[in-house]
Amino acid sequence: MRHQTGRRRRQPSESSNGSLASRRSSFAQNGNSSRKSSELRGPCEKVVHTAQDSLFSTSSGWTNFRGFFNLSILLLVLSNGRVALENVIKYGILITPLQWMSTFVEHNYSIWSWPNLALILCSNIQIVLVLGVEKVLERGWLGNAFAAVFYTVLVIVHLTIPVVVTLTHTWKNPLWSVGMMGVYVIEALKFISYGHVNYWARDARRKITELKTQVTDLAKKTCDPKQFWDLKDELSMHQMAAAYPSNLSFSNIYYFMAAPTLCYEFKFPRTLRIRKHFLIKRTVELIFLSFLIAALVQQWVVPTVRNSMKPLSEMEYSRCLERLLKLAIPNHLIWLLFFYTFFHSFLNLVAELLRFADREFYRDFWNSETISYFWKSWNIPVHRFAVRHIYSPMMRNNFTKMSAFFVVFFVSAFFHEYLVSVPLKMFRLWSYYGMMGQIPLSYITDKIVRGGRTGNIIVWLSLIVGQPLAILMYGHDWYILNFGVPSATNQTVII
Amino acid sequence: MRHQTGRRRRQPSESSNGSLASRRSSFAQNGNSSRKSSELRGPCEKVVHTAQDSLFSTSSGWTNFRGFFNLSILLLVLSNGRVALENVIKYGILITPLQWMSTFVEHNYSIWSWPNLALILCSNIQIVLVLGVEKVLERGWLGNAFAAVFYTVLVIVHLTIPVVVTLTHTWKNPLWSVGMMGVYVIEALKFISYGHVNYWARDARRKITELKTQVTDLAKKTCDPKQFWDLKDELSMHQMAAAYPSNLSFSNIYYFMAAPTLCYEFKFPRTLRIRKHFLIKRTVELIFLSFLIAALVQQWVVPTVRNSMKPLSEMEYSRCLERLLKLAIPNHLIWLLFFYTFFHSFLNLVAELLRFADREFYRDFWNSETISYFWKSWNIPVHRFAVRHIYSPMMRNNFTKMSAFFVVFFVSAFFHEYLVSVPLKMFRLWSYYGMMGQIPLSYITDKIVRGGRTGNIIVWLSLIVGQPLAILMYGHDWYILNFGVPSATNQTVII
Repeated sequence: MRHQTGRRRRQPSESSNGSLASRRSSFAQNGNSSRKSSELRGPCEKVVHTAQDSLFSTSSGWTNFRGFFNLSILLLVLSNGRVALENVIKYGILITPLQWMSTFVEHNYSIWSWPNLALILCSNIQIVLVLGVEKVLERGWLGNAFAAVFYTVLVIVHLTIPVVVTLTHTWKNPLWSVGMMGVYVIEALKFISYGHVNYWARDARRKITELKTQVTDLAKKTCDPKQFWDLKDELSMHQMAAAYPSNLSFSNIYYFMAAPTLCYEFKFPRTLRIRKHFLIKRTVELIFLSFLIAALVQQWVVPTVRNSMKPLSEMEYSRCLERLLKLAIPNHLIWLLFFYTFFHSFLNLVAELLRFADREFYRDFWNSETISYFWKSWNIPVHRFAVRHIYSPMMRNNFTKMSAFFVVFFVSAFFHEYLVSVPLKMFRLWSYYGMMGQIPLSYITDKIVRGGRTGNIIVWLSLIVGQPLAILMYGHDWYILNFGVPSATNQTVII
Repeated sequence: MRHQTGRRRRQPSESSNGSLASRRSSFAQNGNSSRKSSELRGPCEKVVHTAQDSLFSTSSGWTNFRGFFNLSILLLVLSNGRVALENVIKYGILITPLQWMSTFVEHNYSIWSWPNLALILCSNIQIVLVLGVEKVLERGWLGNAFAAVFYTVLVIVHLTIPVVVTLTHTWKNPLWSVGMMGVYVIEALKFISYGHVNYWARDARRKITELKTQVTDLAKKTCDPKQFWDLKDELSMHQMAAAYPSNLSFSNIYYFMAAPTLCYEFKFPRTLRIRKHFLIKRTVELIFLSFLIAALVQQWVVPTVRNSMKPLSEMEYSRCLERLLKLAIPNHLIWLLFFYTFFHSFLNLVAELLRFADREFYRDFWNSETISYFWKSWNIPVHRFAVRHIYSPMMRNNFTKMSAFFVVFFVSAFFHEYLVSVPLKMFRLWSYYGMMGQIPLSYITDKIVRGGRTGNIIVWLSLIVGQPLAILMYGHDWYILNFGVPSATNQTVII
């Protein structure tokens, strides 16, 4: 983003040369100008004062305050740089990259000592099973009723396996479980999309045989343009039906399982080649930013959360607020880094490797003026899935907009809670409430504030404050669950 | 500044109504579009994936990151709000507005118990003296040599009086002395401008009588256009000379002394009427912001400076840097508030009362890409004075640009030091070095960095870091001068 110099650069009023010639020409210019106040002009100087407004007065019409943007960025860097320096003076360096490495190395070289990786490998069974069932359904040996029951059971079982394994095992670092469960959630959503689209294709094939005679009958009776549209509709159905069973192959389903999307299509747009430069850049970003995130968490977030436990259980409100704000800045920075690392670096890396051409993994969520635009733009794979496989089917089945909206947020809230509560082995519903709280907040920004800059600020504020609030809640409860009440003098009731 | 919504708002892809009619029309649209990947289209859904780049990829051509500006402002408010909250938790409320009031009230109701106010009132003697001398000079009873000696002596005496009074008196609050000395400096500069312009007018009158015959002689000889320019030049001189001695009146000189400018002109541009709304707004701003500045200094700056004394005398570098950055943020905020309060609220208030129409008290210094543009734009009254009465006369007398530039900065550095050292009764030259340091810095931004965003950041950085550095220097020395060395174990040598 290049800083444009759209400034009103006035010519400095010193005449660079005091010789008579230059003064003459400046007088000649003044003679042409229509300044009224130039009547009284000294022989050595141009007129100094002219009637004009100050730039901060709205009447001046001045709008270029671009330099203040640089200032705010600079103050942000300096003020948080100071807090970071204070942190290092207080705690020293807490980052331990060698220890991170050792978590990979210290295990035995048996796959079962890495239960999370084993679980991910096991999920191939479900993938193959889905492909097999789709083959059976295609041949018409079993009906759509069976398909509905099969997919429901499959998804429930698929989401239950990691819960059972996680809750029965004991391991120190819940991060690996979060990663594994994330993969399982993604797979579950992909299964739903895969089954849904194949169902549409079968439906299209069936309708075509039904309608083929109907269309010829109608064409005989009328020449209504509506019939022409129906024909176009059937044509599209026809294309789908024609492509149909050929998509049911190992390579097709595995490409979909690996692709950075949750919406199944028979054929994805592809790029012509893998760009090596692009690949290298994204890989370097991925590695560097992952390390940076881990370092920031260890150095900045962990001590802050730990120091928040006492004020939080003693319910000192001003201290709690101070802790919340202290956590909010690094947390938000980490969230932004995470967003870039995952949605830009990682998904683009995967897409480049698979020559997957649709790179719209996010839209301009940073400009969101309403909460609903934020949820429509920050995570496009999930947004597309929700629209295509939850919202639109509900609309087609005559549910109200409001109820479809509610169901989408409910499903999202469920998965948020699922990914947090199970690895922490602690069911508190803070994430769930956080997600469900988006619905009234969305009403405020959409209907009351009606977007604009205020809307944008509310969106950012909900992100900056909402997340650390949830982290403090979970951190506090987790701490008490694992280490007991921090202050013996002050017993707090944990709900 | 209204937030423009130049965003690419995509239509959300959910079709609001699942009925066949709406789907038909959407298919009709798709039929017209040239999307290649739309060949395989399900009967229930539009195509989901199209080949496109991520917005953070430069190839996407996306440039609207406006929302991040709101974010940076928000993070700035939150992170410094937290520091402010920490400060209140640590020190409680330190602001004492009642005590500020008492400084006005506690004195006897004799004018001599307010020596600063008495001094300002006394300066009327100099004003009347200047007018009297100008009257004498106008009549030709005394020559320009006398004028040169008179003004030199006057300015030296005028600037010496407050120094003598300040150094011989003892009072607790050096702020009042700073205010009084500021008024004296402004008066001194106004005297110079007044004398200079009146000298030009006498010079013009003299030249006209000399040239009148010359011009007619020349006109007889040639019709060179250069002669025409000379005539124009003389016309302007003539105007000045014609207006001349009528300006030498009490009302004229007192209007100039009160007007928010340092450059004398015979006739200033005036507004037609005093706008009451404007007046009220500026008055409210002036009162509110002055209180805010005083409160911020007492609550935030004073404890920070006090806490910096020990690390500063022990020369712990990382702690010193932390203290410097801790001071930099509130100091810069206060500087910005002071700038707005003085240059916008106060000077506009005075100008409105005097119906003074030229409100250009500052230009867009916030967009400065070079140090020299910053000094040309942040304080227009002083900039105009320096150009008109120091730089341009030196250029006319064949000094080099560099030496004129140097003299301007030297004079400025002198007055900066004058306004700080005398009230603190401590001569350390930190301000002087700060101002003179602008010359090499100006070379860097003008010639090496050559403006742009980097130049703007350097300008801001020099302001943000330079000022608190000087404050810490003075604060440290003042503390030691008044309270002795803070740490008995570690004696530091004060230069």
